Amino acid sequence: MTIFPQPSGGRIDGARHLFAVRAYYEDTDLSGVVYHANYLRWFERARSDLLRLLDIDQRAAVEAGEGAYAVADLAIRYFRPARLDDNVLIVTQCTQMRAASCRMHQRALRLTGAGAEGEVLTEASLRIGFVAPDGQPRRQPKAWREAFETFLSSDAPESESPESSV
Amino acid sequence: MTIFPQPSGGRIDGARHLFAVRAYYEDTDLSGVVYHANYLRWFERARSDLLRLLDIDQRAAVEAGEGAYAVADLAIRYFRPARLDDNVLIVTQCTQMRAASCRMHQRALRLTGAGAEGEVLTEASLRIGFVAPDGQPRRQPKAWREAFETFLSSDAPESESPESSV
Amino acid sequence: MTIFPQPSGGRIDGARHLFAVRAYYEDTDLSGVVYHANYLRWFERARSDLLRLLDIDQRAAVEAGEGAYAVADLAIRYFRPARLDDNVLIVTQCTQMRAASCRMHQRALRLTGAGAEGEVLTEASLRIGFVAPDGQPRRQPKAWREAFETFLSSDAPESESPESSV
Amino acid sequence: MTIFPQPSGGRIDGARHLFAVRAYYEDTDLSGVVYHANYLRWFERARSDLLRLLDIDQRAAVEAGEGAYAVADLAIRYFRPARLDDNVLIVTQCTQMRAASCRMHQRALRLTGAGAEGEVLTEASLRIGFVAPDGQPRRQPKAWREAFETFLSSDAPESESPESSV
Repeated sequence: MTIFPQPSGGRIDGARHLFAVRAYYEDTDLSGVVYHANYLRWFERARSDLLRLLDIDQRAAVEAGEGAYAVADLAIRYFRPARLDDNVLIVTQCTQMRAASCRMHQRALRLTGAGAEGEVLTEASLRIGFVAPDGQPRRQPKAWREAFETFLSSDAPESESPESSV
Repeated sequence: MTIFPQPSGGRIDGARHLFAVRAYYEDTDLSGVVYHANYLRWFERARSDLLRLLDIDQRAAVEAGEGAYAVADLAIRYFRPARLDDNVLIVTQCTQMRAASCRMHQRALRLTGAGAEGEVLTEASLRIGFVAPDGQPRRQPKAWREAFETFLSSDAPESESPESSV
Repeated sequence: MTIFPQPSGGRIDGARHLFAVRAYYEDTDLSGVVYHANYLRWFERARSDLLRLLDIDQRAAVEAGEGAYAVADLAIRYFRPARLDDNVLIVTQCTQMRAASCRMHQRALRLTGAGAEGEVLTEASLRIGFVAPDGQPRRQPKAWREAFETFLSSDAPESESPESSV
Repeated sequence: MTIFPQPSGGRIDGARHLFAVRAYYEDTDLSGVVYHANYLRWFERARSDLLRLLDIDQRAAVEAGEGAYAVADLAIRYFRPARLDDNVLIVTQCTQMRAASCRMHQRALRLTGAGAEGEVLTEASLRIGFVAPDGQPRRQPKAWREAFETFLSSDAPESESPESSV
């Protein structure tokens, strides 16, 4: 019987969510490095993986017309470019939880050949709001807030202050 | 003889560059609106169009190994979503010019049915650096700086202060 | 009063729909040319523009739960690459119309500096089906079929046989 | 010491390469399912992963100006859509090897909740050519051909005939 590979999944490590991606042709542009907008796609994959690990079913919520998370604002700094075939670690932290939104901090780091954390490539601070299908802000489902609070409270966030540094 | 349509081009209007895009299927996601990262692609198209209007040949510079513009930091706020088939105006201003970088302010507005400027969808402030192929900051080509300064000085930037508001 | 630019629109020229796009950074990859999957995005933009010119409102149909067009099969040949800043003409023809689907032929040609039709870059043959929200094939709305038939019958398709050549 | 997650990697299973992806927001469109062009991105990720497993260094080849693989033609059939959060298995086979090109067959299958192979979503047949930086066909590096032939010969391809069925 064949054991099939599974899509890469992340892991919750205290108050951090860790997720890895690899840079493919589709991610690069003419200048030979990853196109700047594609880090936002990588960060979104990591947030979706975090929701999955917290047993939050985004698709069921969209299909039931309950609402969806949407980025309300985002600030990102680009320090070093990722290149084709780089392994990149996405580190996600939730730095603030409110009724209808949360603030998150995400970094992309190059994984070294040995699989360890390497240089920081980009760093972002985002506010994510929960919105009804009509686009209006809506309180997050109670179970979702509780799930997030477990993540938030399980450890102190790292000392960096994303609001000021980004 | 057939006259062929040409790709949409923008226009320099005093100190503003105006460029229009339409939201297609490829731009949307499951939630029915434009995926958040795709505004960055629209903003990049507008900046590339501005360079073209200023007779700056990005492709020749990349191919000659002179360097390329790269986003150094970016802050974006999402106010209202764009939907399929929306016509969207991208307004670009250059708010600061330095030897190796410039700061730009970009907004996406929905064009009304009558083709007039409508609601603001997103607003961004960016710093764009010129970088050598090895990733190091490099002074912009003199002719490029001069071209940009024409754009910058031709009119006062609008009163908004993107650094504080975004 | 400022006249705003509008997004590029195509034009129906007999039995052909003509639409133009430009290659931007977002379209390219590491190899310096347009990423192969992005021609499919360009072709989709052209088909959406054709629907718009035929007064077919895709978004209203999706939002009303009536259904949407979906690609059922596609064959594409890549002859020459598009490069950054190339102006590219997308030529679309409808070669067959059925109750729940149609067959289309699309080509991407480089526009010359003089704005004339140049080399063929890629050529595709596609079958597009109309599908209900549950994914089942559905008859196209009558008004849509009638609109398409106008397009189909207004002139003989070009002599190429996409089914055999692609 | 923290053990970091790694990007998902595929596996060579006889004459098949197996690779898994997950459908994220970025992959979907307005119609609620994965946008048709994005299967081409998934297939490219799988081919790149296969090259990596065969110790073929695409990035070094591009950077050294030796050349790169490019899709010469592609035919894809869409049977069923992938939806947000679906786990999708990409099965890749090399069905023909020539000096400057190879023919590949790729399928996307939904992985069931139990992680087993499920319904076929899409199926494609592609010819991939090796091209010099000037776009001309070039013989594949000898070591690359040899690596591929190991993959090709290690087992009989499946009985399907992609050329006729796609």
